[in-house]
Amino acid sequence: MPIIQFNLLEGRTVEQKRELARRVTDTVVEVLGVKRESVRILVHEMTDDDFSVGGITSRDRKASAEPR
Amino acid sequence: MPIIQFNLLEGRTVEQKRELARRVTDTVVEVLGVKRESVRILVHEMTDDDFSVGGITSRDRKASAEPR
Amino acid sequence: MPIIQFNLLEGRTVEQKRELARRVTDTVVEVLGVKRESVRILVHEMTDDDFSVGGITSRDRKASAEPR
Amino acid sequence: MPIIQFNLLEGRTVEQKRELARRVTDTVVEVLGVKRESVRILVHEMTDDDFSVGGITSRDRKASAEPR
Amino acid sequence: MPIIQFNLLEGRTVEQKRELARRVTDTVVEVLGVKRESVRILVHEMTDDDFSVGGITSRDRKASAEPR
Amino acid sequence: MPIIQFNLLEGRTVEQKRELARRVTDTVVEVLGVKRESVRILVHEMTDDDFSVGGITSRDRKASAEPR
Repeated sequence: MPIIQFNLLEGRTVEQKRELARRVTDTVVEVLGVKRESVRILVHEMTDDDFSVGGITSRDRKASAEPR
Repeated sequence: MPIIQFNLLEGRTVEQKRELARRVTDTVVEVLGVKRESVRILVHEMTDDDFSVGGITSRDRKASAEPR
Repeated sequence: MPIIQFNLLEGRTVEQKRELARRVTDTVVEVLGVKRESVRILVHEMTDDDFSVGGITSRDRKASAEPR
Repeated sequence: MPIIQFNLLEGRTVEQKRELARRVTDTVVEVLGVKRESVRILVHEMTDDDFSVGGITSRDRKASAEPR
Repeated sequence: MPIIQFNLLEGRTVEQKRELARRVTDTVVEVLGVKRESVRILVHEMTDDDFSVGGITSRDRKASAEPR
Repeated sequence: MPIIQFNLLEGRTVEQKRELARRVTDTVVEVLGVKRESVRILVHEMTDDDFSVGGITSRDRKASAEPR
């Protein structure tokens, strides 16, 4: 019954999402001993404006980190 | 005060969302005895790449289920 | 595949939760046309200190509403 | 370690999101006494079809409120 | 920046949670190429009354599965 | 309509939660221009076993940081 929600910045490839689903499920099955079919994974993607650390959005953090 | 979040695969119609909001609210009001105006429903939609069961994304599950 | 999360103030009975699960699932199956076994419902309960409307916690709202 | 998720109707500007991130982080740091860099804020936006109060979606509420 | 929320039925041991945190983080770092310190994992546990599949709570499902 | 969910390690006082609700609501009203009564805040608390950064739970991080 594990229901697992990933919050990620947008930009992952289909292949990365596929691999994430497969491998995280492998791990959960091994560690928790649940049936494989009971594991559900949801991915929510965010833009750079929709995520902040320490009060600074990812957009602004990237802008200030860029070389001049 | 119930706050209810639906996670759904994308592709529902406006009419389905309207009916879902109305009827789930009816049910919550009846079962929990709360005021109708206190019920809030949020819908988050996911693409087929962003949801997996048993480690297989909906995209891949649908692809493998298609007739050849 | 609908995954539905309820956020409720604590204090519901086992019977209310049972009825909520059954009847909300009925509604979701009817409106969205999904398979019954694909519907998952999670309930998260909160104390009166952990929920606020308009900046006032439920604890304080109830306290100020009580007769003297 | 506070992780704070905002659910908002879509339509906020980049500037509003920037200010929200900065000022909510200020407040959390002051009230909880945590390190600034430990505060993470996520924003999830919804369309008018994906949010309802009292069983009526924002789309329908706005439509019925419009002047004729 | 991945923020990952696990919803589990209650009853996991401290050791299972520790292993889940470590190994899921390993996987996320490998698949997404993010920095290890940027991965945050939250676990929310539910009672058997607070989770249902197909409209039947875990409590009731277990009760009906028990031998007589 | 903002619905804001805080995920915090357990141990906050009633007074901190009260102040958090009030002041975050103040900020949201000012920045987003929404009605005060439309702001809802939920707090979910976690134990030290239920939160990890970089694959290490808060419990283990605290244990290793303690003086000997």
